[in-house]
Amino acid sequence: MEEWFKEEHTEGYYVGWKVKNIIMQEKTPFQDIAVIDTVEWGRALVLDGMVQTTERDEFIYHEMISHVAMMSHPDPQNILVIGGGDGGVVREVLKHPGVKHVDLVEIDRRVIEVSQEYFPRIACGLSDPRTHVQCLDGIKFVRDAAADYDIIIVDSSDPIGPAVPLFGDEFYQNSFRILHEDGIMTSQAESPTFFKPSFQTVYRNMKRTFPIARVYLACVPTYVSGFWAFAIGSKKCDPGVLHDDKSALDGLKYYTEGVHKAAFELPPFIADMLND
Amino acid sequence: MEEWFKEEHTEGYYVGWKVKNIIMQEKTPFQDIAVIDTVEWGRALVLDGMVQTTERDEFIYHEMISHVAMMSHPDPQNILVIGGGDGGVVREVLKHPGVKHVDLVEIDRRVIEVSQEYFPRIACGLSDPRTHVQCLDGIKFVRDAAADYDIIIVDSSDPIGPAVPLFGDEFYQNSFRILHEDGIMTSQAESPTFFKPSFQTVYRNMKRTFPIARVYLACVPTYVSGFWAFAIGSKKCDPGVLHDDKSALDGLKYYTEGVHKAAFELPPFIADMLND
Repeated sequence: MEEWFKEEHTEGYYVGWKVKNIIMQEKTPFQDIAVIDTVEWGRALVLDGMVQTTERDEFIYHEMISHVAMMSHPDPQNILVIGGGDGGVVREVLKHPGVKHVDLVEIDRRVIEVSQEYFPRIACGLSDPRTHVQCLDGIKFVRDAAADYDIIIVDSSDPIGPAVPLFGDEFYQNSFRILHEDGIMTSQAESPTFFKPSFQTVYRNMKRTFPIARVYLACVPTYVSGFWAFAIGSKKCDPGVLHDDKSALDGLKYYTEGVHKAAFELPPFIADMLND
Repeated sequence: MEEWFKEEHTEGYYVGWKVKNIIMQEKTPFQDIAVIDTVEWGRALVLDGMVQTTERDEFIYHEMISHVAMMSHPDPQNILVIGGGDGGVVREVLKHPGVKHVDLVEIDRRVIEVSQEYFPRIACGLSDPRTHVQCLDGIKFVRDAAADYDIIIVDSSDPIGPAVPLFGDEFYQNSFRILHEDGIMTSQAESPTFFKPSFQTVYRNMKRTFPIARVYLACVPTYVSGFWAFAIGSKKCDPGVLHDDKSALDGLKYYTEGVHKAAFELPPFIADMLND
C-alpha cells in the first residue's frame, strides 16, 4: 500500500507526506490519534491530523523544550510536565542526575499507551521509577496542586481541541503559584511565522505572569516550515544564561551550551512580534 | 481562479501552496520560470518547479547569504555575485557604504528581466550605477576573470539543471584565485536535513579550497522545512567574528550581530555531517 498523508497547516499551505503504512488510527474521547509510517521521517504520531513527533527528528523539539529550563535552574529536582504524553520530555529531564520526581499530566490516556506501544525509544522514561503518570486535565491539576515544583514544561498540541485552556490566563497563574521561588516554566509557543497570534498569546501569558519572560527558537524540520518558538518564564534565574554549576549532558544531538545561548538571539522580525 | 501549486522536495515530501493567480510562466533555454501569487507568502518566483523567493520572506535568505561575509571582511569594495538574478543579494551588499563595484553574473537573462518586472523591491539594486549585470555562465566568468574581488557570493538554485557546475571543484578553485588575499566566499548550501549530500558537497568544496571553511544556518519558512545552510570560505578573516570596524546596518529584519554569531552554533547532528 502506498498513499499520501496531507497535513493542512493553514488554508493556503499544506505538506504531503508519503506513507508506507498506517499503523493504527482511532478516535479517543479527546481527539483522533494515528500512527503512520512515513517514507521521509520514519514513524510519526498524528493528533487531529497534525504531526506531533517523528522518530527521526523528535530529538530536536524534546531536547530544546526540556534542557533550556533545566540548565538555567541551579538544582531542578521536582518537575511537572503538562501534556507530553509521548514521553519525550520526561526522557530528556531524566537525563539530569539531580531529578528526583517527575509528574506527567496528560489528559488522554491513549496517547500514553499508543506511544509506549509504537514509540518505545521516546516513551522509555514513562516507566522510570521517578516518573508518576497522571491521566488528568492539566488545568485542574495545577489548580489543585501544592507549591512543589522547580520546573514546569508545557508540551501541548496546537491551541485547537483539548489544548485550548493551556493557552489561557488561569493556567499560567496557577503554574506560577505551584513553582518554588526559583522556579522556571517553559511552554511550546507555536510557529511565529505561520501561527503568529498563538505565538503572541503564549508569550503575553508568560510576560503577564513571570518577572522574567523570554522567547527562544529552534528549527524542527517536521513542523511547519521555519522556526518553532518556546516561551520561558522565570521567577529569578535568567533563562538565557546557563547556571554556573552545570556540566554538559552527554549524547545530545541538538542542544549544546552554545545552541542554548544562540536560541535567544531573535531576528528583529520575530522580536518585533513580542511588542505588537 | 483558484488552484494549488505542488512543490516536490523529495520523493516522500511535498508542499502545497494555494495560488491566487499564475502571473507568468515560460520556458527559457535554461529552465522553466514562473511567477505565482500565493495566498500565504505573496508573490513567488519559481524555477524548475521550486520556489526560489517570495515577497514576504525573501529578506531572510538575502540578508543571511550577504551580510555574514560582508561584516566579517575589513573593507569589502569589489563584490562578485554568481547567480542571484532576482537581485536580492545585490540589494543587500549595496547597503554597505564602502562597496564600489558589484558584478552580477547570471546565466539566464530572463530571470533578471522577470525579477525587474514582477519583483521591483527585490531587483532594485540591479539598476544601481555600481552594479554591472553580465548574462554569462558563472563557471566561465570565474575562469577568465582577473583577481579583483573582496567577496564572492554564490546564490545558485538547487544542484539540478543550470546550477550543477557551481557545485564542482573547478569553480571553487577559480573563485579562490580571483579573490584578494583577505577575500571571503559564501555559497548557499542547501538543507542539511532534506538534501544532505548537496550540503556536504558544498562544504567539502569550500574546505578543500580555503584555509578557513565554516557552515552557518538560517531558518527560511518558504524553503523546505528546517534549517537552510550556507558554507563560507575565507583566506584570512574568521567569518564567525564580526570585523572590529563594523557599525550596524539599519533596517534589517533578520540579521543582527547576535544572529551572525548564533548562526555558527551548529547543533551536533549537523556538525557531525561535516565529518562524515
